[in-house]
Parts: sequence; C-alpha cells; structure tokens
Amino acid sequence: MIERTLFNADHQAFAESFARFLDKEVAPHHAAWEEQGYVDRAVWSKAGENGFLCMSLPEEYGGAGADRLYSVAQMEAIAHAGFTGLGFGLHSEIVAPYILHYGSEEQKRRYLPQLANGAMVGAIAMSEPAAGSDLQGIKATAVKSADGSHYVLNGSKTFITNGWHADLVIVVAKTDPAAGAKGTSLLLVERGMPGFEKGQRLKKLGMKAQDTSELFFTDVKVPAENLLGGPAMEGRGFICLMEQLPWERMQIAISAVAAAQAAIDWTVDYVKQRKVFGQPVASYQNTRYTLAELQTEVQVARVFVDKCCELVAADRLDTATASMAKYWTTDLQCKVMDECLQLHGGYGYMWEYPITRAYADARVQRIYGGTNEIMKEVITRAMGLGK
Amino acid sequence: MIERTLFNADHQAFAESFARFLDKEVAPHHAAWEEQGYVDRAVWSKAGENGFLCMSLPEEYGGAGADRLYSVAQMEAIAHAGFTGLGFGLHSEIVAPYILHYGSEEQKRRYLPQLANGAMVGAIAMSEPAAGSDLQGIKATAVKSADGSHYVLNGSKTFITNGWHADLVIVVAKTDPAAGAKGTSLLLVERGMPGFEKGQRLKKLGMKAQDTSELFFTDVKVPAENLLGGPAMEGRGFICLMEQLPWERMQIAISAVAAAQAAIDWTVDYVKQRKVFGQPVASYQNTRYTLAELQTEVQVARVFVDKCCELVAADRLDTATASMAKYWTTDLQCKVMDECLQLHGGYGYMWEYPITRAYADARVQRIYGGTNEIMKEVITRAMGLGK
Amino acid sequence: MIERTLFNADHQAFAESFARFLDKEVAPHHAAWEEQGYVDRAVWSKAGENGFLCMSLPEEYGGAGADRLYSVAQMEAIAHAGFTGLGFGLHSEIVAPYILHYGSEEQKRRYLPQLANGAMVGAIAMSEPAAGSDLQGIKATAVKSADGSHYVLNGSKTFITNGWHADLVIVVAKTDPAAGAKGTSLLLVERGMPGFEKGQRLKKLGMKAQDTSELFFTDVKVPAENLLGGPAMEGRGFICLMEQLPWERMQIAISAVAAAQAAIDWTVDYVKQRKVFGQPVASYQNTRYTLAELQTEVQVARVFVDKCCELVAADRLDTATASMAKYWTTDLQCKVMDECLQLHGGYGYMWEYPITRAYADARVQRIYGGTNEIMKEVITRAMGLGK
Amino acid sequence: MIERTLFNADHQAFAESFARFLDKEVAPHHAAWEEQGYVDRAVWSKAGENGFLCMSLPEEYGGAGADRLYSVAQMEAIAHAGFTGLGFGLHSEIVAPYILHYGSEEQKRRYLPQLANGAMVGAIAMSEPAAGSDLQGIKATAVKSADGSHYVLNGSKTFITNGWHADLVIVVAKTDPAAGAKGTSLLLVERGMPGFEKGQRLKKLGMKAQDTSELFFTDVKVPAENLLGGPAMEGRGFICLMEQLPWERMQIAISAVAAAQAAIDWTVDYVKQRKVFGQPVASYQNTRYTLAELQTEVQVARVFVDKCCELVAADRLDTATASMAKYWTTDLQCKVMDECLQLHGGYGYMWEYPITRAYADARVQRIYGGTNEIMKEVITRAMGLGK
Repeated sequence: MIERTLFNADHQAFAESFARFLDKEVAPHHAAWEEQGYVDRAVWSKAGENGFLCMSLPEEYGGAGADRLYSVAQMEAIAHAGFTGLGFGLHSEIVAPYILHYGSEEQKRRYLPQLANGAMVGAIAMSEPAAGSDLQGIKATAVKSADGSHYVLNGSKTFITNGWHADLVIVVAKTDPAAGAKGTSLLLVERGMPGFEKGQRLKKLGMKAQDTSELFFTDVKVPAENLLGGPAMEGRGFICLMEQLPWERMQIAISAVAAAQAAIDWTVDYVKQRKVFGQPVASYQNTRYTLAELQTEVQVARVFVDKCCELVAADRLDTATASMAKYWTTDLQCKVMDECLQLHGGYGYMWEYPITRAYADARVQRIYGGTNEIMKEVITRAMGLGK
Repeated sequence: MIERTLFNADHQAFAESFARFLDKEVAPHHAAWEEQGYVDRAVWSKAGENGFLCMSLPEEYGGAGADRLYSVAQMEAIAHAGFTGLGFGLHSEIVAPYILHYGSEEQKRRYLPQLANGAMVGAIAMSEPAAGSDLQGIKATAVKSADGSHYVLNGSKTFITNGWHADLVIVVAKTDPAAGAKGTSLLLVERGMPGFEKGQRLKKLGMKAQDTSELFFTDVKVPAENLLGGPAMEGRGFICLMEQLPWERMQIAISAVAAAQAAIDWTVDYVKQRKVFGQPVASYQNTRYTLAELQTEVQVARVFVDKCCELVAADRLDTATASMAKYWTTDLQCKVMDECLQLHGGYGYMWEYPITRAYADARVQRIYGGTNEIMKEVITRAMGLGK
Repeated sequence: MIERTLFNADHQAFAESFARFLDKEVAPHHAAWEEQGYVDRAVWSKAGENGFLCMSLPEEYGGAGADRLYSVAQMEAIAHAGFTGLGFGLHSEIVAPYILHYGSEEQKRRYLPQLANGAMVGAIAMSEPAAGSDLQGIKATAVKSADGSHYVLNGSKTFITNGWHADLVIVVAKTDPAAGAKGTSLLLVERGMPGFEKGQRLKKLGMKAQDTSELFFTDVKVPAENLLGGPAMEGRGFICLMEQLPWERMQIAISAVAAAQAAIDWTVDYVKQRKVFGQPVASYQNTRYTLAELQTEVQVARVFVDKCCELVAADRLDTATASMAKYWTTDLQCKVMDECLQLHGGYGYMWEYPITRAYADARVQRIYGGTNEIMKEVITRAMGLGK
Repeated sequence: MIERTLFNADHQAFAESFARFLDKEVAPHHAAWEEQGYVDRAVWSKAGENGFLCMSLPEEYGGAGADRLYSVAQMEAIAHAGFTGLGFGLHSEIVAPYILHYGSEEQKRRYLPQLANGAMVGAIAMSEPAAGSDLQGIKATAVKSADGSHYVLNGSKTFITNGWHADLVIVVAKTDPAAGAKGTSLLLVERGMPGFEKGQRLKKLGMKAQDTSELFFTDVKVPAENLLGGPAMEGRGFICLMEQLPWERMQIAISAVAAAQAAIDWTVDYVKQRKVFGQPVASYQNTRYTLAELQTEVQVARVFVDKCCELVAADRLDTATASMAKYWTTDLQCKVMDECLQLHGGYGYMWEYPITRAYADARVQRIYGGTNEIMKEVITRAMGLGK
C-alpha cells in the first residue's frame, strides 16, 4: 500500500477528534435517523459547538481559518462510516463558501457565524422538476419589484440536500429570464419568509437519513439586499456556480473513495470469517481476485483524488480534472459496492448490514452534482472534442 | 423484434386474465404492502379462488392439470409489473411440486388442494444462518424418536420466502447428521406445531412486500408421517433438491428477463418525454446506444429463456443450462436496471419511481437460488473442468 | 448443453463432406497462404468442382437449389477451423444472390454458372477510402455515355474482400450524383475491362490469407447491359443493398459464434494439459469461471443465431434483429478470443497458435459489414429512438 | 489536465535528446525491422555511443550515475512512439542492475562497461517451455563439476526478449534441484560458449521487431566465476529475482501508460479529420464519450504510475503496489487500444496504421513479467487473503 502524504499531523489529529464525535453523537442514532428520514436537528448544533462546521471560514466569520484538507478529512470520515444523513459537506464547503466568496460584507456577517455554529442549516436550491443538472433550463424567476426593494420569487425546486432542515437556502433563479444563463442570480432565502414552503422529504433508494426535499416558492418577497453579492452580482449567478463546481465535484469524489475503501475493509473481514463448503470465503480464488481488483482500483483512485486535493488546496484544480474524478470514482464506488455486496451472499441483501446500505447510498453519486454523462461532456470539451 | 412462439392462444388468454387480476387485486395495494412488509393474506385466497395458484397440479389435487407454460406466463406478468411481494411461483412451482413428485398419496391429498385454493401458503426452508447455498453444510437436525412416531426437529432457517405467511413449510434437515448430504430429509412442518416459531420479517434492500423471514425450530415434534415421501425417502432429500433445481433456477431467469424488458419499456417512454438541454433525452446518442445495447441483450436473453422453457415443458432441461440461464439473465437484469435507473437522472433515485424499486428488487436475483458463483461451478463441472 | 435443431440430416452430411474438403484441400496450405497473403486460386476451382460454391442458386444457374442452411453449415465449418482466407460466403451468399435477385435473365446466365463452378471469383465494391460504411457518401461515379451504350466508371474502392482474385466485381457507384442515395446503381465489372486496376493486397492485423484489396476504376467503359438488373434498376442500387443487409450481417454473426466456440474448445483442451505451479491451469477457479462465463455466452449466442437462421430460412428476419446479432456476437467473439488468449499465457502471443490468429482474425468482425456502432443506430431506429 | 511533476528540467532535456535519436536512428527503419523480425544490431551500438544505454549505472562502470527517472523518460519515449523492437529497458534496467546489485567486482568490470557502450546486448532467461511465470517450476539445471571449476548447464528457455541479439544472458537455473526455489542460481552465459545455441526468433502477434527467441543450453560449461555474485550467491537466485520484480513490473506499467496516451492522441487527431455521414467522427457523442472515458483512465493511471515512480526513485515501492500498477495499466492499455482501433473504422485493421500495430504490441503486456493473474495473487497476499 502507498502511504498517504496528503494530511499533516494536525489534519490527522482533527480527523481523530471528529471520529470520536461521530462515535458519540452519530453512531448510536444513525439507524433511527434513517427510519425517521432525517437526522436530529441537535446534531447540527453539537457539530457547530465542537467546531466541526465551516472550519475553512476565516475566524472573523466564525470559522477556524483552516485549509480545505480538514474538510477533506471530515468528508472521508463521514463517508467511511456511511453516515450519509449528515449534510455537513454541502453546508460547510458549498453553501458557506458561496457567501464568503460572493457575498457582501453584511451578508457574511449576518449568515456565516450562524452557519458555523450550527444555528442555521444551509442548502442550495438548483435542481427543478423539469431541469435536473441543466442550469440553463431553470424556470424559477425572481422579478424585481417596481421600487427595487425586493424580488418576487416563484418556482419549485427538488432534490434539495438538507432541504427539510434548511434555515438558509441559496436559491438559483432567473432575474432576467430573457437573458438565458446570463440572467441567473443567487438569492438568500430564509426559513419563514412568507410563500416559502417545504414539500415532503423525498423517499429515496438510499441516503435515508438525509432530508432531501422539495421546496416551493410562491410570490416570496425576497429583500433586495438578499441578492447574493448585492446589485453588482445580479445576473452573474451562473458564473459563480461554474467557479465552484470543481471543488464541489471533488467532494463527491472524496466521499466515493472513502466509502469504497470502507466497503472493501468490511468485506475482507467478512470473507475471512464466513465459511462456505467448509472453507472461508476468502480462500476462494474468485473472492481473492475480486478483492484484489477492487483494492487496486480504489488504491489508484485514492492516489488520484489525493493529487486532486493537493491541487484544490493550491487552488489549481481545473474543471475537466474534477469531472474526471467525480465520474470515475463514483462509477468505481458503485462497482465496489456491487461486488462487495455479492461477496456477502444473502446477508448482502439485508438492510441491517452496512454493505447493503452503502450499496443503496452509493447509487446517487453517479447522478447528483451533474450526472456522470455531463462530466464526460465537460471532459470532451477540454479535449477539443466539443460539439 | 422476434415474434415469440412459446405461448399458444390458451396461454395468452390466461396471461390476460391474470393481468386483469393483478390490475384489480394487486396494483392498488402493492405500495402499501411494501410499507407494511408483507402482502395481505387475502390476496392468496383470492388467487386461489380464481385459479391462479398451482395451475400445473393435476385436477384431482385441486390444480388445472396445466402445462408449466401457464406458470411461466404468470411469473412473467408478476415480474413485469414488479409485484415482487407475491411469492406465487415458489408456492405453486416449487413447494407444491415437491409434494406432488415425492409425497405419499396421503400427503398429496392433505396438502395439495389447500395449497391450490390458497388456504395454505407454502414455503421451503433450506438456508441457515451459517450456510447459505451450501446444502451440505446444513445444521438443522431431525432426530427420530425412540418409538419411531416422530422426529424432533431443531434448527434455525433464514431468508425464507413466504416465511411469515407460511402455513406449510418443507424443512430441510439432517436425519442422519453423520451421513453428510446423504443424511438429508425433507419434513412437512405446519404452522402451529409447538416449538415452531417465526422470527422477524427481514428488512431488505428491496422486495419489500415479500415476507422473507427467519424460522426457528426448537424441539418440534414432527409426526413421522410428515416425512416427505414417507420412510423410503428418509435420507434422500438431497436428491430431491437436486432434481428440482433446473426448473427452480429457470423461474428466476424467467422473471429476470420479464423485469428487464419492463425496465427498458419504462425507460424508453421516459427518455422520449423528458428533456434536457432543450432536447429529449432520447435524442442523445449515448441514450440511444445504451438502450440499443440493453434491448439487444434482453432480446437475446428472451430467445434463450424461451428455448429453455420449451425444454422444461419437454422435461429435457439439464442442470448446467439452467445454471447458465440463471446466472446470465440475472447479471443482465441488474445491468439493465442500473443503466435504466441512470437514464432517469435524479428521479431514478426516488422510491416512487418503478425503476428505483425494480433496481432494488433485482439485486437479490444474483444471490438466491444458488449464487451466480455457484452457477459457474455447476457449469464448469459440465464442461469437464470440475476440481 | 442444448442440442441444436437447426440442421437436418442432409445439412449434417453436407457439413461432414465439406469438413473433409477443408481437411484435404485447405488445412495443409492455409499457413502458407497466410504467408503469401492470398489463397491459391485453385482452391476456388476445386470448391466449385465439388459443389461447394453457390449451393443455394437454382440448379438452372449451376447451383444445387439448396436452402440457405447449407451455406450456414459451410460458414460455420470455415470459421470453426479459422480458414479466414476463404471468401466463399461473400462469393456464394452475397455476390451471387445480388445477380439472382436483381439481375436480368441474361446476366444470370452469363455469370451465375461461372460463379458456381469457380471459374469466376466474385466481389462487391462498396467501401471507399473516404467513406467506410456510409453508402450515401459514395463518390464513385458511373456517367452514361451520350449514346447510352455504356457507363464511364471512375472511383476508388478499398477493403474489398476477394478483391485481388476477383473476376467479377459488383461496383456501387452513383449514376446520378445529385440524387444522393437514390442515384446509386450497381455495375457488373469484369476483370480485364480497360481502366480497372487492382491496387495492392492490404496488409492487415489478421485474416492474412484473405486477399482484401484496393480497386481503382479510371474511365472504365462498362457496357450498359452490365448495369445490374438493366435500365429499370438504374438508381435503385441503394434499395438492393438495404434488402440484402440482414442476411449479409447474419453471415458475420454465424462465423462469430462458430469461431468463438472453437476458441473455447481449444482453450479447454489447453488448460487441461498445461500445468502451472504444479497444477493444471484448468484447476484454478479463475480459469474455470472464465471458461464457464464464455461458454455460457456462446451457448446463448448460438441459440439466438440459430433462431435468426430459422427466420432467414423463412425469409422473415428483420434488419434490426440482424443488426443485434451482428454486433452482439462479434463483440462476444472478440471477448472470447481475448480471454482465451490470456489463458494460453505466453503461447497465446505466438503466431503459430490457432488462438493467436483467431484473435487477430476476429477484430475486423466488429468493423466490416457496418461497424457495430452503425448496428446500434439501426436498432435504435427500430425502437423508435431515431434522431 | 494535471501537470506532471515527476521530471525535472534535466530529465526533460534528456527526453528531448533521446526523442531526436529516435527520430533519426529508429523512425526511418522500424517498419523494415518489423519485416525482418529484429532491429539492426547497429542501433544498439549507436545508442551506447550516445549514452542512451545503462544511464543509471555508476560512472565507473560506464554509466552516467543517473537516477532511474531518466530511464523512465526513455521508456516512455520508446513506448509512445511504438518502437517496441528496442529492448533497451530490459538491457539497461533489468540485466545491468542484476550485475550491479549482485555481481562480484570482477563481473561488474567485465560486463557493465560493455553493456553500457552497446558492445554487448543483454538478456535474462527465465521462462521455459513448460513453466511460464512459475519460477519454482524451472527445470534448467547447472550442476557443479567435481573439481568445482564450472557448472554444466542444461535446459531450454523461451520467450527471451533480446534473445537473438544477446551477447550476455543471465540464465536462471537450479544448482540444487532438490531444494526447490532455494536451489535457484543465476549464471552469466556468453554468446559463443559451446553448447549454447539460439533457436528461431519467435513469430508473434505483435512486437514484430523485437527479437524474442528460444535459447538452448546443452552441456554448456559455464566457468564457476560466472555464477552471478560468486559462491556466496549460489542458491540465492530466487531472492534476487524477487527483489528486482517491483522495478521490473513498473517498467511495463510505464510503457503501458505512455503507449495508451499515444493511442488516444492519434485517435483524437483521426476523429477530428475523418468524416462519416457528413460529420467529423469526433462530433458523435459515442466518439466523444469513449475518448473522454479513455482519457480519464489514462490520466488517472499516469498520476498513479508517476507516484509509483517517485517511490521507485526513493527505493520504497512495495511488491503489491508494483503488481497493481502492472496489471491495471496493462489491462487499461489493451482497452484503450481496442477502443481507439474501433474508432479508426476499417483503417484500424490495416497494418500500416500505428494504432493497429499498437493494438497487436499491447496484448503481450498482460502476459509477460508475470501474468496479470499472478499479479492478483501477489496483491491478495498483501491483503492477508493468501491461501
């Protein structure tokens, strides 16, 4: 095995501390949260109190001024344990950074500390029923009032991670519907604004403790000062979305590799102890070759993703490479889950086994964050093969 | 497309009649049954009343004396609709035939009519916690009492289809533990026999309306006359199990192909209507090639399985060919589900979509009835490559 | 294994007779023919003398009035033995049928008996350097002379099977270049016509005894009566080509399955005798599972192709099904060759081993007769997914 | 794309210089060398004169005292150009290092300068007709003479790279046949020793300019001082072989990635210029996705192999990781060649196209240096799954 060099001693100490948090605050409850369809709101507060949210925000906004590798370590720990109900990554490394990078000073001061301490749960509302990963097809509109004091927001969003818990939602909407992608803006919408309603939590194949929801906006009066970044950013939402994509897609890749490695580890343990026809399952060549192949690919993926994380930390990761990482590691994750499940025999189909839930959880990774097909479009463009 | 020639007009009329039954008695309830974890017991009675159970039993035992192709048509209809809660195939074409082929006249008269009219639900208990598909590793014991009047049955069984509803269970147990496979016998155990208890319904990845259960036997006194086939069959259970395997495995293959074709049909419909980036998903070459590949393989599988069914009807299907059909079609089924799910985008992960449930349902097909790895062992032996 | 029912006793007797012909007239020479890059011309004459060419032509034109299944048996025998230098299938079941189906009575009388007795070798010239499988992109032109007595043919053709030996070439050319596909006609061009020259035999990855060649046509005066089918067929060549495609593509599928089965048979023999680490290669689970998988797929393919051949014999095979057969079996053939080669270890890379040549021979099957990508286009259209 | 950091400016300058050497001394001749089955002997001398052999040897033995990354750059250049006739890697980085690491001072002085200046071509003779990668099954014997002055060497070797040109062959033989692997020794056998004969150059699927040969040893009297490492190394040959394996296997992986990237580059160029159905092949989604997938995997492989090369340079690469690299990159190489060939259509089957030869060349990479199956055995052992 190749020794990892991505993390320094501080990252590792953080990872151990966070692992203890998971053991204490999440492990005893996650199965129950899957039953109810959402994590207890309290886990967000506890995470905030313990400094496990928004670590990469500057200290002045409630963060720890940490580099992104702390978040990488956190995402790996969550994925490795299969605690897919925790939407911390999206909250800390997608929602908060939007506000940090594009928000006005006042927006930062109003929202970031609350995201960091867990008082607010963040979400971002892009997907719509009629337009999945196709941002240009967005139909939600935010029409400026005659006096310029607010936007009137209308539209429906779906597949919104953290949607049911969300206190603050960055809503992607068209402020100039005639202008296509160029008319896209980002609005900061708070829980409780009249006309903002939450639909049902979506029942899914897996990720059952994740409160993915539909959101509905009907004539919501969003104050003009809630346009992310202020007046100058009107119509520039699409550019913001594009800029953040590489890092967002890497987050999926990071969790894919960690989850896949966990599955291999569980399976190696299982096949060593489980016997069929009088011999450990591990003793059969088919078992051994399958696990050798999976471990090889996950090792290769780990080296690749670690390299990409180094580039993230240096702000040098390009879109095509991030797309490669997202599509390839999530395809691999699903392949690993499928073959590890098979090696568990009948138990691989029983919900109580971690591999079974990991199999169900994994399947969405090839879809969200831009389907893997869209990743290939991005890559071909970088290869000069675009249409 | 190749026109099917497997079914004659009578088979087709039966299939249409059964489809109406499904529409009326199952379709409105199946989602609720998935929620509760089992189908309503009444659907068994209604099926019996309408002649949809045990059609291939002779009329004297309550059946219709029909050839097996009626059952094939029924299995296809159930699989095509995704009504995986209905364990009719196992009941009618595995449990009943054991009694018909190996049972004493008295056993046939006592049980077959009740299985045929739905008064009794049948199950077969092979798998044990410590031995999945490995029949030789079975630990349940049935020790004959000193006076020869009964067997004392002890053991645990798991993954038992129809287990929670079952009124009659064919239990595989060792009457001569020292004799290995040769000491295996089949016992007819009825609900209510003291010491026979049902464990919990197993929570699974899919097949959520199927009442798969654990069964426990603690010093159950099974009357000697409940040994399937009577005294002469003591110790010959393994042979019975082997003889029935080809047909049992074909049943899995039959449902695999029907379910896969349904998934393609749903997906073709979906991609024609769903638009991304302003065009129907169906218009993209990736979509079209994927569906062309899947349809090709399912067409090929259908021709193969139909050929195997012809051999079943003529009692000429060999074990290796049945194993080929089981492993290859179920691998294909899972591949089809996976790619069709992907073509549904985010909706493919939502439980309310049929493709999502079909994906979850399919996964066990590569495992039960003998894992696909065991199928390959069987095939290699027929190729002269056995160890 | 499933017993084949495609052939009757007469077909089988024919197959045995042809196998003896191959043993005597081809086996001792094929390696040398590979070295020289073409089969000896004499083998064509001998095949003709022995009734092994154009069996399906009516007796009045020199054939045996046989059904097409004799040709199927012949193609299987050639493919099974790996004698890919023999272009009999193209000659007998593509070239001759064009003349039979579309030719004038005079054309039939002039050419068919000579094709049947081996005096003439036939070829068909479709592909051009700038247009592979794209018939609509054909650039060769045949311009009618002012007096209507002849066409002036100009153009280059490439990848022409039997090209170097060919005495009679059906040349696809545009008689009305402005009319697109509708301006396509078929001309019967004979060796020796001034301006018709043969380029070099093409050096290929495999099929080294097959005299695939380039053909050049420079102001060739082709008599008007050499328009296939006479004046009424001018501009209808595209339709003819389309009508014959299903049967032509099946021929590739037939050879794919036969070649694949041969490779499995060789490999089973090899792994039983070859030892590594003190045990026969056949004893390793990886070997056994690999061969079980390949044999399963080839068995499935055989049942499918036999079904398609029955439809061919009944003139009921549709284009989409033929395309399924062509693409799926040739993909399979290449997969079989690849894995069987690997099981031969270092010897699998040595040219003297049949598996090595079979690997090299197989690769073109996914390309010619319409690439497998084009097959998928055809299938999607039949599924209603056409662009 | 991820910028490579493996090479410094000196490595790059070396690579450019070597590329010029290839352009001048190899490119004009390689096709002819393929025809004749071996490279001209002169290219070895020229490489030696120009400092392109044995760069990593210390200067005192004729090398440049360079780190191994110069060799990596050289291997990449050869593989990228497809000049598989040049066995420089084996000569410089397998044969010479054996002598450097295990040889006596006298052996180093006698052989290394001649290997470095190209006066001698080196080879290593492990494989035997009856034992491919199975070193323990070696049958060649080297029996010490009664007076201890020499060994009498008997045995046959096959698949010997550089075999026909070889002036110096390290022969693996058993000096103590009863001791199994522990009785294995390495002998330095020179061209011209009586009883050492070369068999024919082996005709292969690809690598046609590589003079792979059989070697025969009949009562060859090998002076005792030609035992590699002298008396203390008798019976320790197996350990030497094991120690060098990681670096040897990496060499295959390095060439695999370079060759694969070259194939993608050629194919991207080809599909941009080649049109079908009126559009560039590059414009079809199937083409674009295929190339995106291949480029992704080759990018991932490159990052992984570069990481492994860093470990090689630091002498810290373990056997299991090298085995992962060897098996995974060569599987990938063959996949890339297969799909890129397909995208060339009919031209992909023509020997004159580089992709065609690269396809044929690639196939052996999964076999030699230990088959990929053996790699998996090695990996499973490191995972604690060994038998």
